[in-house]
Amino acid sequence: MPIYQAPLKEFSFLLREVLGLERLSNLSAYASAGPDLLEAVLAEGAKICEEVLQPLNRVGDQQGCTRHKDGSVTTPEGFKAAYRTFADGGWPSLTCDPEYGGQGMPVVLSMAFNEMVTSSNMAFGMYPGLTHGVYEALHQHGSDELKRIYLPKLTSGEWTGTMNLTEPHCGTDLGLMRTRAAPQPDGGYKISGQKIFISAGEHDLAENIIHLVLAKIVGGPEGIKGVSLFVVPKFLVNADGGLGARNGVSCGSIEEKMGIHGNATCVLNYDNAVGYLVGEEHKGMRAMFTMMNEARLLVGQQGLAVSEVAYQNAVIYARERLQGRALTGVAAPDKSADPLIVHPDIRRMLMNQKAFNEGARAFSMWIGVQADILRSGAAGAEKADDYMALLTPVVKAYLTDQGFANCVNAQQIYGGHGYIAEQGMEQFVRDARIAMIYEGANGIQALDLVGRKLGMNGGRAVFAFFAEVDALLAECAAEAEMAEYCAPLKETRERLEQATLWFLEKGMENPDHLAAGSTDYLHLFALTALGMMWLRMARAAHAGLKAGTGDAGFYTAKLATGRYFMQRVMPDGAAMLAKIKTGADAMMALDAEAF
Amino acid sequence: MPIYQAPLKEFSFLLREVLGLERLSNLSAYASAGPDLLEAVLAEGAKICEEVLQPLNRVGDQQGCTRHKDGSVTTPEGFKAAYRTFADGGWPSLTCDPEYGGQGMPVVLSMAFNEMVTSSNMAFGMYPGLTHGVYEALHQHGSDELKRIYLPKLTSGEWTGTMNLTEPHCGTDLGLMRTRAAPQPDGGYKISGQKIFISAGEHDLAENIIHLVLAKIVGGPEGIKGVSLFVVPKFLVNADGGLGARNGVSCGSIEEKMGIHGNATCVLNYDNAVGYLVGEEHKGMRAMFTMMNEARLLVGQQGLAVSEVAYQNAVIYARERLQGRALTGVAAPDKSADPLIVHPDIRRMLMNQKAFNEGARAFSMWIGVQADILRSGAAGAEKADDYMALLTPVVKAYLTDQGFANCVNAQQIYGGHGYIAEQGMEQFVRDARIAMIYEGANGIQALDLVGRKLGMNGGRAVFAFFAEVDALLAECAAEAEMAEYCAPLKETRERLEQATLWFLEKGMENPDHLAAGSTDYLHLFALTALGMMWLRMARAAHAGLKAGTGDAGFYTAKLATGRYFMQRVMPDGAAMLAKIKTGADAMMALDAEAF
Repeated sequence: MPIYQAPLKEFSFLLREVLGLERLSNLSAYASAGPDLLEAVLAEGAKICEEVLQPLNRVGDQQGCTRHKDGSVTTPEGFKAAYRTFADGGWPSLTCDPEYGGQGMPVVLSMAFNEMVTSSNMAFGMYPGLTHGVYEALHQHGSDELKRIYLPKLTSGEWTGTMNLTEPHCGTDLGLMRTRAAPQPDGGYKISGQKIFISAGEHDLAENIIHLVLAKIVGGPEGIKGVSLFVVPKFLVNADGGLGARNGVSCGSIEEKMGIHGNATCVLNYDNAVGYLVGEEHKGMRAMFTMMNEARLLVGQQGLAVSEVAYQNAVIYARERLQGRALTGVAAPDKSADPLIVHPDIRRMLMNQKAFNEGARAFSMWIGVQADILRSGAAGAEKADDYMALLTPVVKAYLTDQGFANCVNAQQIYGGHGYIAEQGMEQFVRDARIAMIYEGANGIQALDLVGRKLGMNGGRAVFAFFAEVDALLAECAAEAEMAEYCAPLKETRERLEQATLWFLEKGMENPDHLAAGSTDYLHLFALTALGMMWLRMARAAHAGLKAGTGDAGFYTAKLATGRYFMQRVMPDGAAMLAKIKTGADAMMALDAEAF
Repeated sequence: MPIYQAPLKEFSFLLREVLGLERLSNLSAYASAGPDLLEAVLAEGAKICEEVLQPLNRVGDQQGCTRHKDGSVTTPEGFKAAYRTFADGGWPSLTCDPEYGGQGMPVVLSMAFNEMVTSSNMAFGMYPGLTHGVYEALHQHGSDELKRIYLPKLTSGEWTGTMNLTEPHCGTDLGLMRTRAAPQPDGGYKISGQKIFISAGEHDLAENIIHLVLAKIVGGPEGIKGVSLFVVPKFLVNADGGLGARNGVSCGSIEEKMGIHGNATCVLNYDNAVGYLVGEEHKGMRAMFTMMNEARLLVGQQGLAVSEVAYQNAVIYARERLQGRALTGVAAPDKSADPLIVHPDIRRMLMNQKAFNEGARAFSMWIGVQADILRSGAAGAEKADDYMALLTPVVKAYLTDQGFANCVNAQQIYGGHGYIAEQGMEQFVRDARIAMIYEGANGIQALDLVGRKLGMNGGRAVFAFFAEVDALLAECAAEAEMAEYCAPLKETRERLEQATLWFLEKGMENPDHLAAGSTDYLHLFALTALGMMWLRMARAAHAGLKAGTGDAGFYTAKLATGRYFMQRVMPDGAAMLAKIKTGADAMMALDAEAF
């Protein structure tokens, strides 16, 4: 059975020594929530993750969810009680607005907490994860009345939420949508249509489920410009806040899928369901994007989170499993063989995972700080907003691509035992796989990055990012110990710049040149971003070592892992740039029939 | 439901125009089996694959195998009848020795046929696949009596075979083995112990199962030097060839695993089972390697075969699914949206798959020709033997690593639908995953390549391989149309040489430097090998176009796909070389406790 131990020491290192939250105490987000408080909350959160959620992970996979004849769905054994504990502990309300019962904690905290929840039990974590997305969309775009009715219950976790975009014939291309909203004389709407792949769409964890549904108002504009967003509660809400009649939405079936069996993926049928408009008519995509951007960061973190727990278990196995002898001489003479961890190729896989996990975690939490800066409305809010827009697709796609690859490698370390369900490693692979697909398949993220985000405001965001890297490199230029970290970052940053300039030049000629290089470009961007985070971590570790106060072993390991990242991960940038520069010609040469 | 269409045209192109079988008709293997006959056999084979095996692929995944209380195992519905059809058709006997009822066909034919079987139904294909491995081991190492008793029934497929290496505490490191063989007064042995992960270990397809079992003879040398190989039939065989008593081997359980559910992966308990020595005492590894090398090629082909069928289905989906509009302007104005295949990032994934499938197929079949040269004992047999030894780990590891990556991408093209079991794409991912693990995990293949195969006979094999590439490049040097294919191959070949020289220099210093770069080196080797095959294919396609007799569309597509491979796949070699040259220091820096 897999284990999980929350990386609390890593979080502390990041909060205090890398992100420097103490220096940011002028931000309203951190004024009352400094590192001491955040650490205390995370330590408490770690307990529920390790002790309540993680033990249910395999149960959830084995049992899955069950749809009954009446359309109701039950979650796996133990999920209901665990959800109760989770909600009673106030965990859904961490970063929510105090006006609606939230705790008003910073976003950076939720980045760390969500990672722990997902490492423990990804399928479970999706229930509160989606709920928070609905909370955010309503908080930003809902009318005061909608907020008054729905936000307190979503904050408390008494109700959960879902997002409804996909239909059988349309996923990415929402302009093809057929679900209709018929205006009613009372100002409300009646929603009819079918939505598929609705995570957490029906279940027994909460007394009500609040569906956010994209639909076209009858008579509105064609295509994506006619899409509006609606709140459709499973049970109608009475004026006194109590639950009224069942609304016209029902679960037609649940999908049999590759993984995340503990989460019910539903076909939802809307049959004249009462719905309430969120925001303006035909402006549904704007509100939905609020929710989607939040969800994309969460999905990116799923890649990291499953990679982390898979890594932890691979390390244990590599330390314990005896097989073969070290090439450099017997390492464990008292044993019949040496542990796997003496073998370089096993190390390669473990170090790839470790270097990614720590770099990706730093990157995620740095994004969390950007969200807090934005939310505080402080100086730098515009830049923080730019970074969020620019880097959300990078987090979503790179962390899930690489997180999945790491799960595959963690499974590989187990050899044949990794293929057997009992060990739990293959579940990580199956679960992590979905994160590359949902909330916008990774190819869509790459297209969003090169097609939309690069050019935003005349490239303001990407130029700011280059300046951020350059400023850090300049700061470190005089520090001899940082030279081995700076050089590969500088090289990768230059490759990214070359790729960006190539796009500027060739994209005008033919937009396919942009799209053809988009995935490589996104990965090259991620290497630069993680490289930047690794330089910051190496610097912090070096400073810590020099100060002589902290855990020298921790700092030394950090420096060594950063070195590995620079030497063994960054070179991929060379191949990415070379591929980008070949453009679209060879890729697009064949007729569709020639495949 | 997924479809499968055997790539018969590809096989013909390879046999006739790339591998030039007609020019090799001096070889005994091809004297009586020229391209015409081979094509006819493959066309017949395609029918059973497409019509009988493929429709059972999903059934096999869903139902899996069932172990009953008495230890017997039943295969999924339809498997038994399909196996009967398969055996009655003479398919198990294709390449077997006519002396024992075989058809004596060339190995290159079985490479193509095995690919089709595995594309259709990987779990099914393992039953005859392992049987053939047992056939080969007995054919090469068994006594005349063992051959007389077992080979005819293995050839006809009346009996199937298994290989028994792994025990709960030992997989790769067979020196740790505990299964014991006690010599008996009659010259036989009694085998006792437990073997795990035995594919096709127990089932209802055949009347007898012939287990090849590694065990230590009581009182023999310690470690790997004391390992011998035994034949242990499920049912003892009477002097008249009829079946006698049940032997002391039983299936203790079958594993619940990630994929290949249609194949029973068994725990086999040996309790004083009667066994017969194969080859010499304590020389079991030699005979087992005969079987393993054969199995490793077959496993490599599994990577290709599942990649091919996943690709075929991804192409269909990409052509049919309407989503979004082409960036270069509307492609299908009469439809609500354009098909996925207009989008460059979808193309990127399809072209990666196509370029790999065709390159890997050419490589596999070229290896098949080497096997035929070796078997014919003709001039060049020594070199062919060297190539087989050198390249078997490359085929096994690269084709399965990349084949799996392609299945993941084929699934990705389906978006959310790829994650749903009904579509069958996620089964390909789960099935293909095992091929990176069994028959020696891919890290072991890489170590075999750099630690054993490179240095064999003073590097004779690897130097011959470089000379092979150089000769081809020299031949093409004057052909202007080939320049764009030659330059990337030359560059990659030079990277491979640099890596080889780096190993020569640094490996003496510290063997960990070799192991640390082994996986990247194996992949770099594979790029060079596939690049060589692509140059040969491009040349053949160009010649075909010039001759103006064949299918111009086919040749044009071949040239375009080769161009893609050169431009978009070969650049990875730059990153691989850079990583190799960083050696083991950063990789091995951390103490085991620091992970």
